[in-house]
Amino acid sequence: MTAFASSRPARRTAYVPSAALVPEVLRGSVLAVARMISRAEAGYAEAAEALAEIYRHSGKAHVLGITGVPGAGKSTLVAALIRAFAADGHKVGVVAVDPSSPFSGGAILGDRVRMSEAAQSCQAFVRSMATRGHLGGLARATLQAVDVLDAAGYSPIIIETVGVGQDEVEVVTAAHTIVVLSAPGLGDDIQAIKAGILEIADIHAVSKSDRPDASATVAALRGMMSLGPARPGSDWQTPVLPVSSLSGERINELKDAISRHWDHLRDSGELRERERSIGRTRILGTARQLFQDRFKRDTGELEAHVQAVVSRTTDPSAAACLLLGWDNEVLA
Amino acid sequence: MTAFASSRPARRTAYVPSAALVPEVLRGSVLAVARMISRAEAGYAEAAEALAEIYRHSGKAHVLGITGVPGAGKSTLVAALIRAFAADGHKVGVVAVDPSSPFSGGAILGDRVRMSEAAQSCQAFVRSMATRGHLGGLARATLQAVDVLDAAGYSPIIIETVGVGQDEVEVVTAAHTIVVLSAPGLGDDIQAIKAGILEIADIHAVSKSDRPDASATVAALRGMMSLGPARPGSDWQTPVLPVSSLSGERINELKDAISRHWDHLRDSGELRERERSIGRTRILGTARQLFQDRFKRDTGELEAHVQAVVSRTTDPSAAACLLLGWDNEVLA
Repeated sequence: MTAFASSRPARRTAYVPSAALVPEVLRGSVLAVARMISRAEAGYAEAAEALAEIYRHSGKAHVLGITGVPGAGKSTLVAALIRAFAADGHKVGVVAVDPSSPFSGGAILGDRVRMSEAAQSCQAFVRSMATRGHLGGLARATLQAVDVLDAAGYSPIIIETVGVGQDEVEVVTAAHTIVVLSAPGLGDDIQAIKAGILEIADIHAVSKSDRPDASATVAALRGMMSLGPARPGSDWQTPVLPVSSLSGERINELKDAISRHWDHLRDSGELRERERSIGRTRILGTARQLFQDRFKRDTGELEAHVQAVVSRTTDPSAAACLLLGWDNEVLA
Repeated sequence: MTAFASSRPARRTAYVPSAALVPEVLRGSVLAVARMISRAEAGYAEAAEALAEIYRHSGKAHVLGITGVPGAGKSTLVAALIRAFAADGHKVGVVAVDPSSPFSGGAILGDRVRMSEAAQSCQAFVRSMATRGHLGGLARATLQAVDVLDAAGYSPIIIETVGVGQDEVEVVTAAHTIVVLSAPGLGDDIQAIKAGILEIADIHAVSKSDRPDASATVAALRGMMSLGPARPGSDWQTPVLPVSSLSGERINELKDAISRHWDHLRDSGELRERERSIGRTRILGTARQLFQDRFKRDTGELEAHVQAVVSRTTDPSAAACLLLGWDNEVLA
């Protein structure tokens, strides 16, 4: 089956209602999946009910989060994992988050090309989410894209994201298994801890294992791990695995560790608490975004408050309360 | 005057009401400044009115944002700038944001030590903000700390932050002058653009200028700058300055560029629009945080929704609307 076998050429110019796309998504139509994800990304009101319906059909896939600072080699690793999982007969989905400038809204695709090649040869579905204009909505649209792939039968689904910042942490903590990728020489261990992502790892990977300084990074991470389990109440031992994505060396070892973590979550009963945590994150993240959107629409009222704050006749907290329609007392 | 000259030993164990600290802050008491910042950081309800009063006395300082990816050498640069501005007779304030793990709440202070030494010898005021438990509140507390230093007569006030993520961008865009620090070899230019901070720079600095690969980074940034002005509507030409913080080489050149940008903002009239933009960011950021806090207190209601989302009887967007008390129609 080729990627667009399910499309009907005569209808491609007309807008297919989102409700009509849902059964197509559920039977795995690549075109329907692509369209639903585009509508989630654009935030179409018309797609809201269909995405809610799709969510209710999700919950079967193993969701992986792959994160690490810029330059660690995440996209290359994702390409290697697509091939490794596809070789085992898995239908792999990928949602990659491209941070972009808050000013220009531009996004650089760069090494996504390598990922696309892997995707084409493996029938995987790869999607890059643009971050422009999203703010809090990025996390929501990204996780809705994961829902669509989940409902369409993709598993594992890989979320690739740069691992710094609230949105990014929100997205990656919606995964069952979090792989944190470190690169040798990319700052010392203290700098990495500063980035705030090492401790959320279920698996550590160290890229560029052929470089001479890789073993020092592996040793530093293993030393950190020996201090105790990463997650309170879990007896999962976080492995530290050197990988070389370009040559494919040790990628199977990483793939096996990912599968082992999934088995651990199910066998230990930790999956239930992990799913609750994911649900909590998603509800609060969505609420926060809906709230922000309200003020984006209501700019007139906002600008009056801005003027008062700039002229120091009021302060930002008092203005925020007025905007919320709340009493100043809530400032506790 | 030593740091604690203004303290009254007999009162140091009793809680001084925040209202009583305000006049002390305004006359520049270091102890009062430290206490007010601690109360802003802790989010004390009792301090809210005093912080509002302090805000109304702020607006005199030149606020600098210094940002860059982990490992770029920000803290070292801040230490060098403290010395350079102090040598010109400035009373420098620094608020450093330490990203910490979302799980453990731990923060690694590391090279802050170097900054403290510079602060001590220059009578500067340096404060690290812990990020644990803050989420959206980090930006609010950080900017309140800047208000306190501003009202106490510090200028320039340097905000040091890692430059990735919504909170971080929110904090740094509350500065009049944004310095983005890049390190040679820390990923190629595409990776740096991914981090989404290059375009918010008023001044680019490239650290470790003694390294052979620094000139390539300087050339790449200059090439990017030649494409046009960083801010729409501004004729400020963003300079790209190599620096070597440890030796102090060229730090004065950076200091002069910072002063030149401040003059430019005032002479061109751009300062007014910059201040409005800062006010907008602060009001919306504060509103978002107050909103999030409401759900942290109201966990019982939240957990019922979490259960429904995990069991797929509802979806995260519908649960968010219920939690907000909003009609599902707003999902547009």
